[in-house]
Amino acid sequence: MGIHAGLLRLSTSGDGHVLDVTPGVAAVVQQAGAQQAVATVFAVGSTVAVTTMEFEPGGVSDLSEALERLIPRTGDYEHNRLNHDSNSHAHMRAAIIGGSESIPVVAGSLALGAWQQIVLIDFDDRPRQRAVHVHVAY
Amino acid sequence: MGIHAGLLRLSTSGDGHVLDVTPGVAAVVQQAGAQQAVATVFAVGSTVAVTTMEFEPGGVSDLSEALERLIPRTGDYEHNRLNHDSNSHAHMRAAIIGGSESIPVVAGSLALGAWQQIVLIDFDDRPRQRAVHVHVAY
Amino acid sequence: MGIHAGLLRLSTSGDGHVLDVTPGVAAVVQQAGAQQAVATVFAVGSTVAVTTMEFEPGGVSDLSEALERLIPRTGDYEHNRLNHDSNSHAHMRAAIIGGSESIPVVAGSLALGAWQQIVLIDFDDRPRQRAVHVHVAY
Repeated sequence: MGIHAGLLRLSTSGDGHVLDVTPGVAAVVQQAGAQQAVATVFAVGSTVAVTTMEFEPGGVSDLSEALERLIPRTGDYEHNRLNHDSNSHAHMRAAIIGGSESIPVVAGSLALGAWQQIVLIDFDDRPRQRAVHVHVAY
Repeated sequence: MGIHAGLLRLSTSGDGHVLDVTPGVAAVVQQAGAQQAVATVFAVGSTVAVTTMEFEPGGVSDLSEALERLIPRTGDYEHNRLNHDSNSHAHMRAAIIGGSESIPVVAGSLALGAWQQIVLIDFDDRPRQRAVHVHVAY
Repeated sequence: MGIHAGLLRLSTSGDGHVLDVTPGVAAVVQQAGAQQAVATVFAVGSTVAVTTMEFEPGGVSDLSEALERLIPRTGDYEHNRLNHDSNSHAHMRAAIIGGSESIPVVAGSLALGAWQQIVLIDFDDRPRQRAVHVHVAY
């Protein structure tokens, strides 16, 4: 019957840094106090993505290598040329993965799998301060 | 003015099995009884994705081949090595496509195109039982 | 405490045409008049995607080239063969990027970054008329 809003602030090291934001999202969900809800998680910025994955070192490393193979950091990129920039790969990766994820809340908790976490991936090529909005609709 | 929640339980054969979940989602939407709403569809687990596509054999086959080409089943994967596992490709594909989709409900029905279905894709390398949460916010 | 719904109608030239729909989405959000909300943006059709990116010519060009490299327009595609069609690449790109994005509304405005826009990408291989539903849950 409304929206409960929370804001997470995170420091990342960039370069594909993957952060587990599940505890922060879960805290906002708990504050909302709703048994049934939908939690929308959104990272502000065009070089950062939000998705779910098993947050463990092997999978994090594999995803990083696959994205470097598919959308390499170095390339003949118009974005970098036109804007005297160096992070076109970050923009593309973020646009393909997407900046938001919506997770149902069931019996007061996020309906994630046992080995499933909500992650932010910062693709920018330098450390960043990031804002993640968590909006719980109930 | 609230959330109507439904749960679909599905058996998949894994290995990229694509299942059309539109009828199940539509049934939950109908139970909700709202004219205007947003239906969020979320598959539990880190090796399964939800998206929309035209569910026909040709497109299903093409998507499967493209994903095998881009993120092969076999590879020198840390996830598999560290966890004595064999499904790192499934984790990566699911993380890139994403586990949720949100579809507007207009005049009581899902606002899908004529040749557009909501699908679950199970990338795990074995048959699985899957839970799909359908939360209708209205 | 409900849903405010808006509909954008757009003409695209297809072939990966990227359109900035942020002003249209922002207008629907303003009409909703809610301080805290979630705006779900959904493009109808299985050959069109919605995501967020920095909408500038360099990034648009780079993303287009990357998608052509990863999922080429021409290929030995079952969808095209079975359906006497020519847009299998469009279906695959749309399924991977996804047709919806959910953006929090904070203090009455979309919580986008300074260089972040909501875009529709029409991957079909011909000009199309597109409908984009904007549902604001508040």
